[in-house]
Amino acid sequence: MPVEQALAELHTLLGEGLSLSKSELEAHGRSESHFPMTPPDAVVFPETSEETQEIVRICAKYAVPVIGWGAGTSLEGHGLATRGGVCVDFSRMNKILQINAADMDVVVQPGVTREALNEELRATGLFFPVDPGANASIGGMAMTRASGTTTVRYGSMRDNVMGMKVVLADGRLIDTGSRARKSAAGYDLTALMVGSEGTLGLATELTLKLHGIPEAISAGICSFPDMASAVAAVTETIQMGIPMARIEFACADTARAFNDYAGVSMAQAPHLMVEFHGSPDSVAQDAERFAEIVSDYEGSPFQWSTREEERRSLWAMRHNGYYAVLASKPGARAMVTDICVPISNLATAVEQTQADIAASSLSGPILGHVGDGNFHAILLIDPNQPADLEEAKRLSNQMVARALALGGTCTGEHGVGIGKKSFMAQEHGEGWQVMGAIKQALDPDNLMNPGKLVPGN
Amino acid sequence: MPVEQALAELHTLLGEGLSLSKSELEAHGRSESHFPMTPPDAVVFPETSEETQEIVRICAKYAVPVIGWGAGTSLEGHGLATRGGVCVDFSRMNKILQINAADMDVVVQPGVTREALNEELRATGLFFPVDPGANASIGGMAMTRASGTTTVRYGSMRDNVMGMKVVLADGRLIDTGSRARKSAAGYDLTALMVGSEGTLGLATELTLKLHGIPEAISAGICSFPDMASAVAAVTETIQMGIPMARIEFACADTARAFNDYAGVSMAQAPHLMVEFHGSPDSVAQDAERFAEIVSDYEGSPFQWSTREEERRSLWAMRHNGYYAVLASKPGARAMVTDICVPISNLATAVEQTQADIAASSLSGPILGHVGDGNFHAILLIDPNQPADLEEAKRLSNQMVARALALGGTCTGEHGVGIGKKSFMAQEHGEGWQVMGAIKQALDPDNLMNPGKLVPGN
Repeated sequence: MPVEQALAELHTLLGEGLSLSKSELEAHGRSESHFPMTPPDAVVFPETSEETQEIVRICAKYAVPVIGWGAGTSLEGHGLATRGGVCVDFSRMNKILQINAADMDVVVQPGVTREALNEELRATGLFFPVDPGANASIGGMAMTRASGTTTVRYGSMRDNVMGMKVVLADGRLIDTGSRARKSAAGYDLTALMVGSEGTLGLATELTLKLHGIPEAISAGICSFPDMASAVAAVTETIQMGIPMARIEFACADTARAFNDYAGVSMAQAPHLMVEFHGSPDSVAQDAERFAEIVSDYEGSPFQWSTREEERRSLWAMRHNGYYAVLASKPGARAMVTDICVPISNLATAVEQTQADIAASSLSGPILGHVGDGNFHAILLIDPNQPADLEEAKRLSNQMVARALALGGTCTGEHGVGIGKKSFMAQEHGEGWQVMGAIKQALDPDNLMNPGKLVPGN
Repeated sequence: MPVEQALAELHTLLGEGLSLSKSELEAHGRSESHFPMTPPDAVVFPETSEETQEIVRICAKYAVPVIGWGAGTSLEGHGLATRGGVCVDFSRMNKILQINAADMDVVVQPGVTREALNEELRATGLFFPVDPGANASIGGMAMTRASGTTTVRYGSMRDNVMGMKVVLADGRLIDTGSRARKSAAGYDLTALMVGSEGTLGLATELTLKLHGIPEAISAGICSFPDMASAVAAVTETIQMGIPMARIEFACADTARAFNDYAGVSMAQAPHLMVEFHGSPDSVAQDAERFAEIVSDYEGSPFQWSTREEERRSLWAMRHNGYYAVLASKPGARAMVTDICVPISNLATAVEQTQADIAASSLSGPILGHVGDGNFHAILLIDPNQPADLEEAKRLSNQMVARALALGGTCTGEHGVGIGKKSFMAQEHGEGWQVMGAIKQALDPDNLMNPGKLVPGN
């Protein structure tokens, strides 16, 4: 068996850095979301770029699939070994290699998590802004083109990865970019790799842009009589040019889940959570101008604060939104939708989604990064009821069709993985075939995370 | 002859939209820079995406090269028909198709120039920020990943193109992105096409991000006793987190050229030109904080203004920097270097470049977008003295080698074209071969702008 020969060579290379234990295989065959368990044949734990190259070369020699693994927080089954193979877990490559404070950049290994990175950066006065809900790994965030609550101001991984070292399907190691702030020297291999979901190679080092921790931060929360008013307040805030660092939406059902999970006492109504970054004067002004808009849309008084502990607990609650909603229905699994539309179509998209869910047999609290036009319905399903999954798929199809009709995309930030692959042809048309041609050129034997993202495999 | 057959079919398709006139061919075989004239076999003027598809299909059928043409302002010979073929001039596709003010985006044809676009946008309160010196076309700017004086704040074409319609080598038309503000749906084809220099396809439509015209703008200029002080003031301003919209450097020789060309009376000393965008209070504060830094580095008093006509003439002068320097030596041609390094290495890079030029037989005023770490030496050469070109090449090689050693890139914004191709292997290593593999996958017959950017052709 080629797999066995590959594992024997990997064992020689890695010793205890190769695991075949059932618990380890299952831990790497599990998904945060509703997908069935699909364990790999082995899990390896490289410690260097060179070791990763050797792993990929051995797998290539025996035509064994290679699947990258960060913190396992993907919601679309990116890391599932649907064709078996070797799962490359980067948890031992979790070092911060170089903090270049003067240049406001940092070089890290892929296994470092966003929280660990920011902990380490704190003393420098700099931070890395991209913050998906989970404490994901930087490598995984890059590979799924993750974003989060601060994307409205600081951008997503697309905007904040300056370069990567990537091991290609044949074991070559390339450097996709320099530490220069910009370059016009050829195809943008960094941008090609960001969001490629491990189908073109494995990132073993990443250079990230950093941002200065703002002098002052103000944040607050307010409720609205209905969803339409909340969304209208968001669009007006954007159109007025008030510079938000965060603007997040939570529906009434999400507020209820927060109350239970985080021990808060929010009104059972739609809410906006916002944050402003700047000087003490500017954040006070921004908050006051926002409060006027809220009042125009009959929102509750907008109470804001610059106290760090209050802000921290607000955003911790928001980041745990997925888990809070999951906990609201014990035993449930979730299908999380992730559409993103132009801001002018946001109200339509949210209202119609809410109506669809209300007319369905499922519950699906809505929350999202409304400043980007991106929101999620967390569709709760009983894993023992196949009809639930079918209903969730129907709702998800409906949402995606609507997003595309409104000029949007099937995934704002969670990526394609297994869950969104069926929408790719519809969203990209011939462009999806172009993605397939690129995949074929760089991974002709289809060994890098096979079965994901591109057509026909 | 295949070319003649192609031209006959193109004539049938386009009528007077095909030109074979000597003056037209020469106008499209000429470069802004030092490259020799290389006219195409024909120039075509498509008016629609569909017509562009037909042009490319006819050229593909007869294996005739296809070279895109915008405003002809490339400094690296991007548009030169080094192997003959058909030059596709987009000057008749210069319409603004859709202004989506609420979403702060715009859909344009590739032939519209940046100045025409901003003229049209003015009434909306929005603007498109990317501003290379020349009044380039949007299509050309996208294809070379152009940037400019405002990139330090608003980003380059990489950051401001949301999507494109692109005609591929086989005539297929793809849409690389939606109007959503972000997406995680597969490979970033938009970013792949931005900076691809027409080697993967021709853009026939572009969706661009717009930005709000700031409520207040302050701008000013000041001189320094020496280059090192000016550069140190820049790095300190950046590290203090003062939010600049523009920060431009001009050396003493450039100041002299400005005096002669723009009729100003600048001191013959290094200068910084800066601009701040924000509220009336914030731009006043920013200018005052900057003035303190300037004073610490013994700069001249920093006189700033919020009057529009003063700002306009300042930036018009800056945008004409290349022409001003060219005019300082009648009959000269220029080789314009374009390196970009991490900010912490900027002072080193500028000082050593100045020393190299001083020790050479050429003059080479320096100016640049120092907030990005990007600067240009405009090396003036006598086109009748082959030794001048050799000396310029030697200096350019030296600058690039230094930029790469300092963690930078051979081109910050002008692109590869013909002029920078010899540095690609050095800068990208195996990554350049990856670019070649992508080119091969999407243009197997090497017909899209052949001879540019990728290896071995």
